[in-house]
Amino acid sequence: MGPTRIALDAMGGDAAPRATVHGALDASSRDSDLEVVLVGDRARIEAEIAGYAGQRGQVSVFHASEVVENEDAPTDAVRKPDSSIRRGAELVAKGEVHGLVAAGNTGAAVAASTVIVRLLPGVKRPGIAVTLPTARGKAILCDAGANIHCKPLHLYHYGIMAAQYARHVLGKDRPTVGLMNIGSEEGKGTELVRETAALFQGSNLNFIGNIEGNDVFPGRCDVIVCEGFVGNVVLKTAEGLSEMVEAKLKSLVATVASGDPSRAGQLGELLKKFQGDMDYAEHGGAPLLGLNALVLISHGRSDARAIRNALLQAARFHRSGVLTQMRHELSASMPKGVSG
Amino acid sequence: MGPTRIALDAMGGDAAPRATVHGALDASSRDSDLEVVLVGDRARIEAEIAGYAGQRGQVSVFHASEVVENEDAPTDAVRKPDSSIRRGAELVAKGEVHGLVAAGNTGAAVAASTVIVRLLPGVKRPGIAVTLPTARGKAILCDAGANIHCKPLHLYHYGIMAAQYARHVLGKDRPTVGLMNIGSEEGKGTELVRETAALFQGSNLNFIGNIEGNDVFPGRCDVIVCEGFVGNVVLKTAEGLSEMVEAKLKSLVATVASGDPSRAGQLGELLKKFQGDMDYAEHGGAPLLGLNALVLISHGRSDARAIRNALLQAARFHRSGVLTQMRHELSASMPKGVSG
Repeated sequence: MGPTRIALDAMGGDAAPRATVHGALDASSRDSDLEVVLVGDRARIEAEIAGYAGQRGQVSVFHASEVVENEDAPTDAVRKPDSSIRRGAELVAKGEVHGLVAAGNTGAAVAASTVIVRLLPGVKRPGIAVTLPTARGKAILCDAGANIHCKPLHLYHYGIMAAQYARHVLGKDRPTVGLMNIGSEEGKGTELVRETAALFQGSNLNFIGNIEGNDVFPGRCDVIVCEGFVGNVVLKTAEGLSEMVEAKLKSLVATVASGDPSRAGQLGELLKKFQGDMDYAEHGGAPLLGLNALVLISHGRSDARAIRNALLQAARFHRSGVLTQMRHELSASMPKGVSG
Repeated sequence: MGPTRIALDAMGGDAAPRATVHGALDASSRDSDLEVVLVGDRARIEAEIAGYAGQRGQVSVFHASEVVENEDAPTDAVRKPDSSIRRGAELVAKGEVHGLVAAGNTGAAVAASTVIVRLLPGVKRPGIAVTLPTARGKAILCDAGANIHCKPLHLYHYGIMAAQYARHVLGKDRPTVGLMNIGSEEGKGTELVRETAALFQGSNLNFIGNIEGNDVFPGRCDVIVCEGFVGNVVLKTAEGLSEMVEAKLKSLVATVASGDPSRAGQLGELLKKFQGDMDYAEHGGAPLLGLNALVLISHGRSDARAIRNALLQAARFHRSGVLTQMRHELSASMPKGVSG
């Protein structure tokens, strides 16, 4: 197949357009089959391209005159007709690119994608699938905050789609799926969780039942299904805790090293090794599962490296053909008489 | 005032009755004004007392022939008339002890306390208030899982009671209160969160508005209010992440130390210093706020040290007179026309 074309909302994220443009140039230089379409203010984007010192790959610019800011309402993504996020979604919908990476206002990206890119047959709500570092590799958590009014069918579809993602993109064979609850025994938790568990039990997923928060990072399962409010809080709490731990560790290492400068190097090593896994930027973006095409959401605080990784991940996602697999699995596992 | 008498469900928790009995003997030896009433199987408790090597303080035994196991339904706490948790709650209700510490089936402790100890005037549901270690000291999160069907009034009361707890037990002057949400902007989140925010805005609490998961461990506020399902998942996720981090750190330290045994001691130091704060056992128990008397819930995996700390914390809680303060604040801040 030909080159993979990915659109990037060049105006999205706290460090845009510099981080987005530089990340795009870096990514395309590392993947010769990747073309990035930078969507946003042409003049500002071209200024950043001109100022970039590193290796460049293939990028092009698609002008969009408006920007949806972080504090704007999600619906502004649709209301601002020439916003970079909306134009990016249109390029996907028209098939001019294979996918979209967005690091800005998440709600706006979800709204624009749902309205313009459209949902997969049967899916009622998209869900954000984040990759978490665990003691046993990587796990997928879905939903991380796209949908705060979840119904059992929504969670059921998240499980099916995230399992396909874990299998075809993370390479997990027959991934295990756990349902986030506040007790592992059957019948525990809210009505939403109990009804969702019943749907999973009737599916052909590798469902291991209810899990609890303390099962996430030890890596008890490959896919964690939870409603968006819970998933968003879990993800951000883990981020905050990791940051606290890193700061604490840095100061301890500094104290120890100051007593014996000759060891500073080795302790720095130790700290670096530790930081590697905990680094969210390494994990790139989070796909919005349930859409007719690939939309990848990147952290609002993304630097050029995070954008680069998100773009490379988007290219892998497209080439994996996972969307076709999801479409197939969804139609094969439609539960009878369940409304969404 | 006379000695502080605290009942302990000696049969509760994974390591009972050994951990509970030894923890009680240790606690009472450290606080000469503390008397612990061990509730449970007299023969087994006395065998553990006889086998205890360390310093002993004042403990007595109150026999109870039944035990509510972890897998039992919460209602069994009430159905089993001679269960240790029910008998413990009765001792509190009759005023024969000043408080109860329970490390077993949390649902059972909540059920027994609600039915037998009863709720404070105006309160509809008790909430578990856990103490979290943050970058700026300690914070209280409520509810950590007692109530998974929260209404705005429940969350409102959690904020009022947890603020009093933070003030009178943790010594925080005018504690800041944050409401857990998935965005910091006003109007974000579910109806439950939005209605609760309105109640807080009308209160005389030091309310800082919505917070997000990544505000918890950096310590952005002293009190975090959230519904029980979310709070339980947050707490357990943090536990799991801490354990993963500790394991990772241990192995890194081992690798580095093996290269140079002379440094093993210093690196061990570093690890130990780090573990101190992250150690949940250090933080003892979590009070069940909203009850007419003190009930402290301790981790099911509590060892003797965790039980000891929970008992010492219970004594401090009683002596602080915080319950009287909560009663007063609740009656002073009853919102008009809000049903629970």
